[in-house]
Amino acid sequence: MIKIAVDAMGSDHSPKVEVEGALDAAAEYGVPIVLVGHKDKIRPLLAERDTSGLTVEVEHASEAVTMEDSPTTAFRRKKDSSINVAAQLMRDGRVSGVVSAGNTGAVMATAKFVVGALSVVDRPALSTVLPTQKGKPAILLDVGANVDCKPHHLEQFAIMGDIYSRTIFGIRRPRVGLLSIGEEDSKGNELTKEVFKSLKRAPINFIGNVEGRDIFKGDVDVIVCDGFTGNVVLKLSEGLYETFIEMLRHELKKTLTAKVGSIFAHNAFQQFKRRLDYSEYGGAPLLGIKGITIVCHGRSNSNAIKNAVRVANEFCKHNVNDAIELEFKKLGLTKAAKAT
Amino acid sequence: MIKIAVDAMGSDHSPKVEVEGALDAAAEYGVPIVLVGHKDKIRPLLAERDTSGLTVEVEHASEAVTMEDSPTTAFRRKKDSSINVAAQLMRDGRVSGVVSAGNTGAVMATAKFVVGALSVVDRPALSTVLPTQKGKPAILLDVGANVDCKPHHLEQFAIMGDIYSRTIFGIRRPRVGLLSIGEEDSKGNELTKEVFKSLKRAPINFIGNVEGRDIFKGDVDVIVCDGFTGNVVLKLSEGLYETFIEMLRHELKKTLTAKVGSIFAHNAFQQFKRRLDYSEYGGAPLLGIKGITIVCHGRSNSNAIKNAVRVANEFCKHNVNDAIELEFKKLGLTKAAKAT
Repeated sequence: MIKIAVDAMGSDHSPKVEVEGALDAAAEYGVPIVLVGHKDKIRPLLAERDTSGLTVEVEHASEAVTMEDSPTTAFRRKKDSSINVAAQLMRDGRVSGVVSAGNTGAVMATAKFVVGALSVVDRPALSTVLPTQKGKPAILLDVGANVDCKPHHLEQFAIMGDIYSRTIFGIRRPRVGLLSIGEEDSKGNELTKEVFKSLKRAPINFIGNVEGRDIFKGDVDVIVCDGFTGNVVLKLSEGLYETFIEMLRHELKKTLTAKVGSIFAHNAFQQFKRRLDYSEYGGAPLLGIKGITIVCHGRSNSNAIKNAVRVANEFCKHNVNDAIELEFKKLGLTKAAKAT
Repeated sequence: MIKIAVDAMGSDHSPKVEVEGALDAAAEYGVPIVLVGHKDKIRPLLAERDTSGLTVEVEHASEAVTMEDSPTTAFRRKKDSSINVAAQLMRDGRVSGVVSAGNTGAVMATAKFVVGALSVVDRPALSTVLPTQKGKPAILLDVGANVDCKPHHLEQFAIMGDIYSRTIFGIRRPRVGLLSIGEEDSKGNELTKEVFKSLKRAPINFIGNVEGRDIFKGDVDVIVCDGFTGNVVLKLSEGLYETFIEMLRHELKKTLTAKVGSIFAHNAFQQFKRRLDYSEYGGAPLLGIKGITIVCHGRSNSNAIKNAVRVANEFCKHNVNDAIELEFKKLGLTKAAKAT
């Protein structure tokens, strides 16, 4: 039976948003939940809500990793952290997936050390889902798990992204693009030029190079890049979104007619913001790890946590990891095969 | 005397926008202009306008580089292209600067082959100016001249960006940041970690790593990165801007009150768009090349061309190249010094 552990101590507004989001998910999707964190902080919040009919347990963890902790310090020094305890629950088969809005580096490192990568995967990749102009979301990976990559890492990211898109979004033949600096085959840096050649041969719907401007257009379903570039893209997109909203607000405040207009246009702005709101998209799955680990934004609200639990649940239901192992073995992409 | 060559055959709407923009610049800033391109296409446009009091010449070039031409093909096969002829005018000292909205790769390659890099500079870098939330523009470089970089290239970009910011924007002590994936000193990929160390020692106001989200915030004046990352950032920003405008328009159209609101808020939107409009910022100077080469967007309008001529004029007036040579020699950053 699927059961999801929610690290209750991770976000900027922990444990409130985690507890609320987890309970909302339990109510809405019927997912059994284990809230991991300090019991004295979680229990009072649980007492405030009607949890009848929901399967919610609390697993005590006395420590919490902060955003300032380095990933290895977090893992080595804070043995009883909520992140660590949640990962151990998954390693021991007591839960099928973990959701955390904590320190991303620490969550990734703990997942790798405690639970481990799938035997076929060289480098787990952090993936994220971005809204697009055409409404359908696009998957971007890697967004920060691997800052320096070899060509075969990106090849593996492409296969994992393809499986993600097919199983979770039901896209029959996802269009997979390689993030580069020109659409022509020959464009790119040393890394992407090599990757381009192997993706040409891969059994996926590789549509070639895509550019930064294509990410949000909606004509590509999976965008592959190294974790440095992906992380820059992710943070730039967040920053630009905030800058746009800020500038627009500023201009709208300047004149009376604009103020009147902004009242009339209020709902449209809300819709606009919602379409771009990361919290609708359910966090960033770490692909290639045993079990399911979903990393959420530190500034997550309860809606983001709820959606992350939903996505974790879907990953488990659709056996995404089995699909990855099967596909990698079929393609001879196992680590063992590489070593020979 | 400063004189600027404008490649009239480059943009998507050439030669109309180039001729108009160049004449506007000649009128507004008193800059002597040489329009380079097919005389039969340029002369009729000149005849339509009152050019009395302006110094405007036409230099005939029988060919035009297209966006599809590869940079080397363009340079080798189209000897009489407007880009090539403009670069030759600069090499021969007949003009001090070149503005082109043509094929960026071809403009850069031609500038390097025909005019050449400054003797002290290893790799010229394409820089661009981005609007920020606080109003002050930020310089980003490299945005595409060098896709694979060594640490000392980025060090040179930082020094050139610092000089650009000081001389053209009058910022006394520009805050120089290194684009990375975390603010902590230790964050980044192999390249940026090396660059971080040398920028710490460089005689600039190095504020450390900055993230994608910081680019548009206005707390950093010069942002340094390799040309692959910079190009992704640039195109992503353009794409996101278009996506935002498109989504907002879509939402505003959906309901009547939103439509009414959008009419009232019209001016605010216009201001918002203008603040983000690349055409206000005068194109992308190729730093480290003898003479001045400014690359404009292929979709430039006449305003973008006018502003690029303004910027070219300012680069010449302020002797930016002399400043670069002086600073590099002072720092022992000459190519000769590196060879020993």
